[in-house]
Amino acid sequence: MLIDPRFSLLLQPQADARLEKAARIFLDHLRRRTGMLALDFAIAKIPVDGHTSLAIRSEAPSPPIQTLDEDESYSLTVQESGAELTAPSTLGAMRGLETFLQLVKTTAQGFGVPAVAIHDRPRFRWRGLMLDCSRHFFPLEVIKRNLDGMAALKLNVFHWHLSDNQGFRAESRRFPKLQEMGSDGLYYSQEEMREIVRYAYDRGIRVVPEFDMPGHSTAWFVGYPELASAPGPYAMERRFGVFDPTMDPTRESTYKFLDQFIGEMAKVFPDEFFHIGGDEVNGKQWDRNPKIQEFMHSHQFNGNRDLQAYFNERIEKLVSKRGKTMIGWDEILHSDLPKKIVIQSWSGQQSLADAVRQGYRGLLSHGYYLDLMSTAASHYAVDPLAEEGASLSSAEKEKVLGGEACMWAEYVSPENVDSRIWPRLAAIAERLWSPATAVDVDRMYARLESIGDQLDMYGLTHNTYYSEMLQHMAGSHDTSALRTLAEVVEPVKGYSRAALAQSEPTALMPLNRLVDVAQPESLTARHFAALVDELISGQLRPGVEPEIHRMLGEWRNNAPRLRPMAENSALLREVMPLAESLSALGAAGLEALDYMDRGEKPGEAWKAEQLAQVDQAASSKAQVLLMIASPVHKLIQATAGEKPTELVVPKVQP
Amino acid sequence: MLIDPRFSLLLQPQADARLEKAARIFLDHLRRRTGMLALDFAIAKIPVDGHTSLAIRSEAPSPPIQTLDEDESYSLTVQESGAELTAPSTLGAMRGLETFLQLVKTTAQGFGVPAVAIHDRPRFRWRGLMLDCSRHFFPLEVIKRNLDGMAALKLNVFHWHLSDNQGFRAESRRFPKLQEMGSDGLYYSQEEMREIVRYAYDRGIRVVPEFDMPGHSTAWFVGYPELASAPGPYAMERRFGVFDPTMDPTRESTYKFLDQFIGEMAKVFPDEFFHIGGDEVNGKQWDRNPKIQEFMHSHQFNGNRDLQAYFNERIEKLVSKRGKTMIGWDEILHSDLPKKIVIQSWSGQQSLADAVRQGYRGLLSHGYYLDLMSTAASHYAVDPLAEEGASLSSAEKEKVLGGEACMWAEYVSPENVDSRIWPRLAAIAERLWSPATAVDVDRMYARLESIGDQLDMYGLTHNTYYSEMLQHMAGSHDTSALRTLAEVVEPVKGYSRAALAQSEPTALMPLNRLVDVAQPESLTARHFAALVDELISGQLRPGVEPEIHRMLGEWRNNAPRLRPMAENSALLREVMPLAESLSALGAAGLEALDYMDRGEKPGEAWKAEQLAQVDQAASSKAQVLLMIASPVHKLIQATAGEKPTELVVPKVQP
Repeated sequence: MLIDPRFSLLLQPQADARLEKAARIFLDHLRRRTGMLALDFAIAKIPVDGHTSLAIRSEAPSPPIQTLDEDESYSLTVQESGAELTAPSTLGAMRGLETFLQLVKTTAQGFGVPAVAIHDRPRFRWRGLMLDCSRHFFPLEVIKRNLDGMAALKLNVFHWHLSDNQGFRAESRRFPKLQEMGSDGLYYSQEEMREIVRYAYDRGIRVVPEFDMPGHSTAWFVGYPELASAPGPYAMERRFGVFDPTMDPTRESTYKFLDQFIGEMAKVFPDEFFHIGGDEVNGKQWDRNPKIQEFMHSHQFNGNRDLQAYFNERIEKLVSKRGKTMIGWDEILHSDLPKKIVIQSWSGQQSLADAVRQGYRGLLSHGYYLDLMSTAASHYAVDPLAEEGASLSSAEKEKVLGGEACMWAEYVSPENVDSRIWPRLAAIAERLWSPATAVDVDRMYARLESIGDQLDMYGLTHNTYYSEMLQHMAGSHDTSALRTLAEVVEPVKGYSRAALAQSEPTALMPLNRLVDVAQPESLTARHFAALVDELISGQLRPGVEPEIHRMLGEWRNNAPRLRPMAENSALLREVMPLAESLSALGAAGLEALDYMDRGEKPGEAWKAEQLAQVDQAASSKAQVLLMIASPVHKLIQATAGEKPTELVVPKVQP
Repeated sequence: MLIDPRFSLLLQPQADARLEKAARIFLDHLRRRTGMLALDFAIAKIPVDGHTSLAIRSEAPSPPIQTLDEDESYSLTVQESGAELTAPSTLGAMRGLETFLQLVKTTAQGFGVPAVAIHDRPRFRWRGLMLDCSRHFFPLEVIKRNLDGMAALKLNVFHWHLSDNQGFRAESRRFPKLQEMGSDGLYYSQEEMREIVRYAYDRGIRVVPEFDMPGHSTAWFVGYPELASAPGPYAMERRFGVFDPTMDPTRESTYKFLDQFIGEMAKVFPDEFFHIGGDEVNGKQWDRNPKIQEFMHSHQFNGNRDLQAYFNERIEKLVSKRGKTMIGWDEILHSDLPKKIVIQSWSGQQSLADAVRQGYRGLLSHGYYLDLMSTAASHYAVDPLAEEGASLSSAEKEKVLGGEACMWAEYVSPENVDSRIWPRLAAIAERLWSPATAVDVDRMYARLESIGDQLDMYGLTHNTYYSEMLQHMAGSHDTSALRTLAEVVEPVKGYSRAALAQSEPTALMPLNRLVDVAQPESLTARHFAALVDELISGQLRPGVEPEIHRMLGEWRNNAPRLRPMAENSALLREVMPLAESLSALGAAGLEALDYMDRGEKPGEAWKAEQLAQVDQAASSKAQVLLMIASPVHKLIQATAGEKPTELVVPKVQP
């Protein structure tokens, strides 16, 4: 069907307020998607003559607070004459609207949606993104645009990590020193948090707040040192890692404080779930405090784990009292806690399965850590019901609610955070929504690129952040040479950035280096590797070899272009060894192609020299990796008549 | 001096609240400019040990409402050891902060500011941008980011065109049907308008609201037809142009209404000036209304001009009564009005000089209409004190307050409006701030490109809007071929877009065609023309000819790349004749180069054929112009041994 100025939405007369709001948001997006911003697409309750309409029928209105078990299924039929979207609930209709929007295409007749019949429902009920707003603070607009992106991908939980050692980001009116002394003035007012809750609800997303306790809590103690297990004073932590400050679980005043605090926050966040963190308590303050030791002894606790379980039991009662269900990380799992709590597993499917076998519900986050700079393919391969999860009974599998991607914020600022979330989050979103059988990686990447571009329309900056940061680095309007380098590198993986740092990273350091600019996954390098594989396979399409040649040539010629710029830029100078390596790889690859073209086999000396160069190029520099090292390695091997093998990058890791 | 984590701002102890706010905004921008978003640059009142600081001293605090005559001068001295900014007023210090920010460069040691000593002051007191929010509505965020851009360019007046035939965009609580019936729900609440006033004040910008009367006022009459000179009912006008509906100046009830309305708005907008529009009254409703005719007769009015002057006199009293000074367009000029009013001239320097000679103060907007798609160079050449203005006495020249760029909104949406304002507004801003002797066009363009990129940091979309719109047109992720075309075209100039339209343009039409995407001024075409001039001059640098060759080759090869895409895109199909012309020009240019290379003179037949092709290419298609027609024309002439001449584009105008 065509999307032209006569397109209209047809709502059933008894449509609820949420659906009406969703319809308006949908039309805003449709206008943006088609560039018809000035258009006033109609929302009608009875068919409009001469209009082509998308008729929406939801069989049940939405509850005022979105629930875990709300039906998200929908059916969408599109024909030349119009479209129909039906769903058992308003929430399902909202999901169907996102699908419709994704189907809009540029066509020979104008914008249009192809004829389809879709019956769709999510595989998991909990599909989330956790954003750490403590280690770095993100303004409201950053959160809003990411909520828009989440809604486009049908994600339904925003897990808001609001406190940690590095900052307390929520306004408490009862305990104002929390944010006044623990946030550098960077916190969300209650009105702002309510605004986010409303914004998310309008987009079919629940908001689960997390206040991490009893560990990861230094920022609480700046204003309220009496909560800690050792005397203060405390200051906001600037470093990253696991630190000693921990709440004192032995004092009644701690629970009195937390009771009031949880009560206050329970009013701000209407969701059923309340996240108490509970991870990474190192116990050192407990070990050193004689009163705490005495308390543990008198309660016959067998170590700190029992003490934390005692704390969690007390907190669980406070959470329950406010009508909420407690959720926490793996470490809160303890048989003393009621079965209704939810375990979020950062440590893996085994831990998740353990919790489920004990009767708890669980979520998977292991394998979905966006800050570790893994590939979309690796996230896509992680399934909450694979590995140990596959051995669960169907009843147990029901208790695996879904998963959450985690964006921990040690190394992200408002400038580059979108680029760390998108487009990779789309792969995780698909894993959690689509059937387990959807595993074709190449097709996933094709969708990822297209979705990645479509998301621009929400103001997400994962595509646009790049040029501004490159300009600052280059100190010049002409960033093409630097871009050539940036597009084939990736930040080092896992936790190695800290290990490779020259001085200890802190929350106050500039995030303006190439490692902060480089995309987590280089699609250019991925594309080049695929071309090389095709070349080596011998079954290559026309144009592949010239394209490889062109790319290698561009890389070879790149260092000379960057050298003069580096004289005037400290940020660029840092990455010149990388630029030189890129040029060397380009030259080596071109020589290999030459040998191939001539049908000549190079000598051993040439091969040894080239492979040594590749090894050198494959080592990380300035916390950045050159991702074309492996395909060039293969080219050299193939030229030398060896069977090509993948080179593990980084080759050398200190 | 270096800008590193030890950079701090040093404020005098008695700094006023506005300066403290400006300091915080400055640091936000500095963080963004350097990518050091996580950094907590200090604001200190006493020097911090080991810090390099920018010390700011303002000799007088700001009044709570910015005035026309506030001193904006400042002195800035930067040395290796630190910087000092002094100004007679906080407003001057704010201007100096923008200069400092512009001086930040990427250097070999990190970010830095070169040693300078600057004494700076504006040439004109009134340097504005008018934005028409009636013909199209712009959300708050659009206005805010443009205010940021204005502040960066030291502009000091935001003239907010809030009502016109196509929409009434301001909330009135006294007369709510104005916005309820006259805006499609697209209006600014009073709280939002106050928010803009505050936002602008914090950036050194006054906000002057305009409510156009007695003409350009259809939108008022939808809710209040009794204000009009003919019975209703009225509907919001969707077309563009001059229309009949006009307020009835003969009824006391009109003035009673306007008195209350102006009183209400005077509270929302604290600025001294209140703009009443006053332009383009066609008088037809007056001519046809017997009661109005009788009134004119009894008052011995000599035509409609006198009636409008009577209306303006009455309105002027209402505006004065609220402590405001009236400002309006040329047409309000009438000797019956007090000399304190200000005339904004859309019709030219002659009209401005006439007003000034009669003792009024005036502003120039003629020559600064951004919607007419003129070049930055042409705007830059317009000087309020040139032409007739040059003959004014110095006392008269003092009455020329400055100028205002005008962004009329017939053909702009939130998606492309920034691209119509920026970067060309920077050329007008420079004209109004810098000495009249700054006239070097090439250097202006160099600054324009650099400023244009720097403005990205405020979220302005003049650079980024492009890729999203091209994607929608192309219906593909790969927009490179379409971009090649888009980058050498410009929308038709002046008022010819409407004249060339197939159906009458309206406020509801989609703005998603190439004419809406194409930048007002093609810098690629400008660059190409310069290269061709260099080639023809015979004094060419190495690399110029290959670059011309490369560009022509890309254009020649472009139509075949676009043809298959056009099969699937109606928006693209519309511009295929243009793409074919571009390819033809590329081919013609390459042939001309070949003749030159061979030192051979082509025959007359070749020349005639090529020039005919250029003529064809130079005619507008789909309301778009191909801007490389003229330089290719020159190439052909030069090859044929003729003296090259500029080709006026468009060659053929219906």
